[in-house]
Amino acid sequence: MKRRRKLGRGVAIVGAGMTKFGMFKDKDSKDLFAEAFKEMLSSVDKGVDPADIDAFYLGNFSNDFFAHQSHWGPIISDIIGHTPKPATRTEGACASSALAFREGVFAIASGFYDAVLVGGVEDMSKRTTEEVAEGLALATVPYEGRVGFTFPGVFGAVASAYFAKYGANREHLMNVTIKSHNNAPLNPKAQFPMTIRDIMNAKMESLRKRGQPVPEWKDEKEFLRDPAANPVVAWPMHLFDCCPISDGASCILLVAEEMAKRFTDDPIHVVGIGQGSGRGFHASADMTYFEATRYAAEEAYGMSGLTPKDVQFSEVHDCFSIAEILHTEDLGFFKPGEGYKAIAEGQTRLDGPKPINTSGGLKCKGHPVGATGTSQIYEVWTQLRGKAGKRQVPIRNLRIGGAHNLGGTGGTCTFTIFERR
Amino acid sequence: MKRRRKLGRGVAIVGAGMTKFGMFKDKDSKDLFAEAFKEMLSSVDKGVDPADIDAFYLGNFSNDFFAHQSHWGPIISDIIGHTPKPATRTEGACASSALAFREGVFAIASGFYDAVLVGGVEDMSKRTTEEVAEGLALATVPYEGRVGFTFPGVFGAVASAYFAKYGANREHLMNVTIKSHNNAPLNPKAQFPMTIRDIMNAKMESLRKRGQPVPEWKDEKEFLRDPAANPVVAWPMHLFDCCPISDGASCILLVAEEMAKRFTDDPIHVVGIGQGSGRGFHASADMTYFEATRYAAEEAYGMSGLTPKDVQFSEVHDCFSIAEILHTEDLGFFKPGEGYKAIAEGQTRLDGPKPINTSGGLKCKGHPVGATGTSQIYEVWTQLRGKAGKRQVPIRNLRIGGAHNLGGTGGTCTFTIFERR
Repeated sequence: MKRRRKLGRGVAIVGAGMTKFGMFKDKDSKDLFAEAFKEMLSSVDKGVDPADIDAFYLGNFSNDFFAHQSHWGPIISDIIGHTPKPATRTEGACASSALAFREGVFAIASGFYDAVLVGGVEDMSKRTTEEVAEGLALATVPYEGRVGFTFPGVFGAVASAYFAKYGANREHLMNVTIKSHNNAPLNPKAQFPMTIRDIMNAKMESLRKRGQPVPEWKDEKEFLRDPAANPVVAWPMHLFDCCPISDGASCILLVAEEMAKRFTDDPIHVVGIGQGSGRGFHASADMTYFEATRYAAEEAYGMSGLTPKDVQFSEVHDCFSIAEILHTEDLGFFKPGEGYKAIAEGQTRLDGPKPINTSGGLKCKGHPVGATGTSQIYEVWTQLRGKAGKRQVPIRNLRIGGAHNLGGTGGTCTFTIFERR
Repeated sequence: MKRRRKLGRGVAIVGAGMTKFGMFKDKDSKDLFAEAFKEMLSSVDKGVDPADIDAFYLGNFSNDFFAHQSHWGPIISDIIGHTPKPATRTEGACASSALAFREGVFAIASGFYDAVLVGGVEDMSKRTTEEVAEGLALATVPYEGRVGFTFPGVFGAVASAYFAKYGANREHLMNVTIKSHNNAPLNPKAQFPMTIRDIMNAKMESLRKRGQPVPEWKDEKEFLRDPAANPVVAWPMHLFDCCPISDGASCILLVAEEMAKRFTDDPIHVVGIGQGSGRGFHASADMTYFEATRYAAEEAYGMSGLTPKDVQFSEVHDCFSIAEILHTEDLGFFKPGEGYKAIAEGQTRLDGPKPINTSGGLKCKGHPVGATGTSQIYEVWTQLRGKAGKRQVPIRNLRIGGAHNLGGTGGTCTFTIFERR
């Protein structure tokens, strides 16, 4: 039945909200989502009455485990005053809210609903790091987790395979980290709004104050090479290659395209949606790409009629620095084996020809698992509307952006393309 | 934006499969789903190539907890050879696979996909009863579970409220149990294919063999009144008012209506879909109805243009006997406070004017949480096609059936109406 997939009815974004990402010991998932929802309401240019929202989709990975409570769809529905209207939870590990987004698109495109709220939340910091690591490991495919792989372990193996095949090395991973940390201070929602140089200087200052010997790091890379500053997690993944543990929430208001102008004169249109599922690396002869991302990209480009060249900037799932490199290749932005070179050349910097992760990415913005997918879309929406402030992509006539979200070790991938008209 | 909700493109069922429900220590979720999938394939009258399936939705409540593994969408996608195509998990507690079904309907109605597999699985019996009770309690809303309510506790309170308001009593609950147990032996997939009389006789036989005194139960009710045979769980819920712990899987193949005849000359059409969310009883002044079910019913009847009278038979979520009574009222089959009388009169028996739970219901068929929603639809599909064998509803010109699924203590409810044309 292969054919070019199309939606029977167009869908557009007319509002978006997100919390600051970070570790908030005094806020639970209900508090966080309420905060994101409130910002979403105030983001709708011509206003929205919550009573106009027909249905709600919530992405959450595993508050079952993290917060010892499941069935979050109706809980959040209650908090935002949405009951008795439908609330559906979607789960695809770290891509949970990208799935919620997609179901919202389908629910409107089907003709059944006109306005749908989609979002995500995760509340991880109340558990110990060990418990979070265990909870996250539940999302690796059984053939990985049960033989001892954790997430850094899998991505460490992926990086080793990539290095071996294409001649990249740790220095190339550092380029990703440094670039993302350069964007983060420009994003008021970021968990770590600091450049690597800021962190390095803070560390030197702190050592100096304590009267301890201060290493003479002459630049960011020298800092990142120092195992005292950037210890190994799972070789070649070091601390600064890994995204943090975070709490947060984000949400997006979708409406049928034909009624978008009731809410704003500047809606952002959903022009390509793609999703794929993956078997895990035990079943792959080559660990240097994600089959599910490639499938998702094919679907999204197919629907939109666009090519990777047309996507002017993108959020790309960088749970680990190596993931960003691979995915920029899987999405077709760069050829296989060329991603690390493009990043080294500065192509993905905020002022480069193909900015990637202007938000700071998962690495710096934070990664409250279930909230990440719609937070990436929040960033694309903000950029396309020219409201990203100091981190605004300086490309003239910014019109097309992408958001790529990965769940697990490639079990679930989504890619979505947005257009400002 | 209130309007009569419609789908832009019709959707029909062309295949369905399910495992026997029960406790299967030697089968995990992968084994179970593979079995249901295989039966689904063989159920398609003109055959289906799995390669024609565009996308997959899986309902699962909490294998995170029960099987210490999350992210089941891609795991099951792998097992059925579906990767790299999309796999999305939905969760709405005991209504998880009814949500998967609904998303499958939207995905096709949107025009994006033509053929979608939806289903559910749960694998509960590897944990102790205490662990299962804890896992299930995660699905009550926080204001219930955290003050000590478990599921039987909440439904016990609901029954007490109903008794007080309408003058029903325990004898009326027994009518539900006896009726469902009368249907169960006619369903080869049922976990407990026994009438209450069968169970009573077996118990007498066993006591007799062991030389112990044999109570003289003269009928089913006398057996159910005996606390030695039917101990209290949470008053007035007794053992035979409660559904069991089960493992199982079920799935449904949905296709766009206009291509259904490629697969079968006897498709079953989805004519009404409804879903609601609920706040929980802490927020309700009246515990004798489920607001979310009423909302779901309104949506489903609204879309279909049908009335409760038109629905000739239905599966109704009977996690506890009282739940079936309340829901037959919430769905409009009987007036509030009249459900228990209708059941006492035999109206919901297999040969009554409005058969309810011909499958034996959750009580006797079993309740592998995530698999229940699509197993109810499996039953309706089987009945409407006249293939239910000894439990075939004897109504002439059987054309319209319903499936009602409840998640948690009313947090999520769905109602779906099907038509044979």
